[in-house]
Amino acid sequence: MNTYEEKTIKRETIFEGKIISLHVDEVKLPNGNTSTREIVEHPGAVAVIAITDEDKMIMVEQFRKPLEHLLIEIPAGKLEKGEDPIECAKRELGEETGYTCEQIEHVTSFYTSPGFSDELLHIFLAKGLKKNSHLHLDDDEFVNLLEVSYEEVQQLIKEQKIYDAKSIYAVQYWQLIKTMER
Amino acid sequence: MNTYEEKTIKRETIFEGKIISLHVDEVKLPNGNTSTREIVEHPGAVAVIAITDEDKMIMVEQFRKPLEHLLIEIPAGKLEKGEDPIECAKRELGEETGYTCEQIEHVTSFYTSPGFSDELLHIFLAKGLKKNSHLHLDDDEFVNLLEVSYEEVQQLIKEQKIYDAKSIYAVQYWQLIKTMER
Repeated sequence: MNTYEEKTIKRETIFEGKIISLHVDEVKLPNGNTSTREIVEHPGAVAVIAITDEDKMIMVEQFRKPLEHLLIEIPAGKLEKGEDPIECAKRELGEETGYTCEQIEHVTSFYTSPGFSDELLHIFLAKGLKKNSHLHLDDDEFVNLLEVSYEEVQQLIKEQKIYDAKSIYAVQYWQLIKTMER
Repeated sequence: MNTYEEKTIKRETIFEGKIISLHVDEVKLPNGNTSTREIVEHPGAVAVIAITDEDKMIMVEQFRKPLEHLLIEIPAGKLEKGEDPIECAKRELGEETGYTCEQIEHVTSFYTSPGFSDELLHIFLAKGLKKNSHLHLDDDEFVNLLEVSYEEVQQLIKEQKIYDAKSIYAVQYWQLIKTMER
């Protein structure tokens, strides 16, 4: 079923940065013509759905330079090279929020934007949350910790303050849990 | 609430392509230090949740060069400059699947990966579907049309054939509708 494959004729690496790399591939299309594909390489990332015993979702507010404004998102972070996504999820939850968890389970994974990037994001559900440590943020990371009720989350979506794929997915996941419990 | 703002000191534009542009911004952090941010500019995109009267989701299979394999996704496409997202959604549905719809409504929008990109994706729900036209694909676009039942969708997720943010969101949306109908 790979009749649609696009074979690489030539790859030009335009940029290799701290986080992403950019390549432009010249490809042979299924019909024999050629085209170019712009490809952003990314190390992958994890995100954590964490709902406290008080039925609040743990979220972080941070400035997102590509958008030039703040967003409120579920805790997340990039994978270190060779890092197990589960370990990364626990680490990021602790570093960004100060919470630890007794259990963590995989919910889903998805490519965030497969048309131009290979970024794969893994989403986990953390259970048995305990607030017991200080934040350990990266040198260039500044976040504001929030604990948000289900009603507040809906309002924040309307206000476009919660406005990214993983967090919108997480809120729909929460809605699904609540609907199934009814 | 913009104490976390990162002011641009200098922008270097590394690449301006067919679809994306890449900038590296030197920024002043809230603590006065400087850092760099790698930013991919993208025109934005739309995607369409389309479920037929036979309770099948309309999907398209296509080769995704960044991943070097096929994915099965909900119909989607990039916004043309200045294009209304609703019009783009109708256009892409028609071009990629040959279906038209009587009604289309906004479901959600999200930034796919706000850490490095400004790509904003709008998801619509198409209703009153009619199969009545031929496909009109771009010159470098090759897709395989599928109509997939709810059970098949679950299996395709397990097999990592459905594996991108908008489609995973769409399947969860479908699950939510089905749960609410019960």
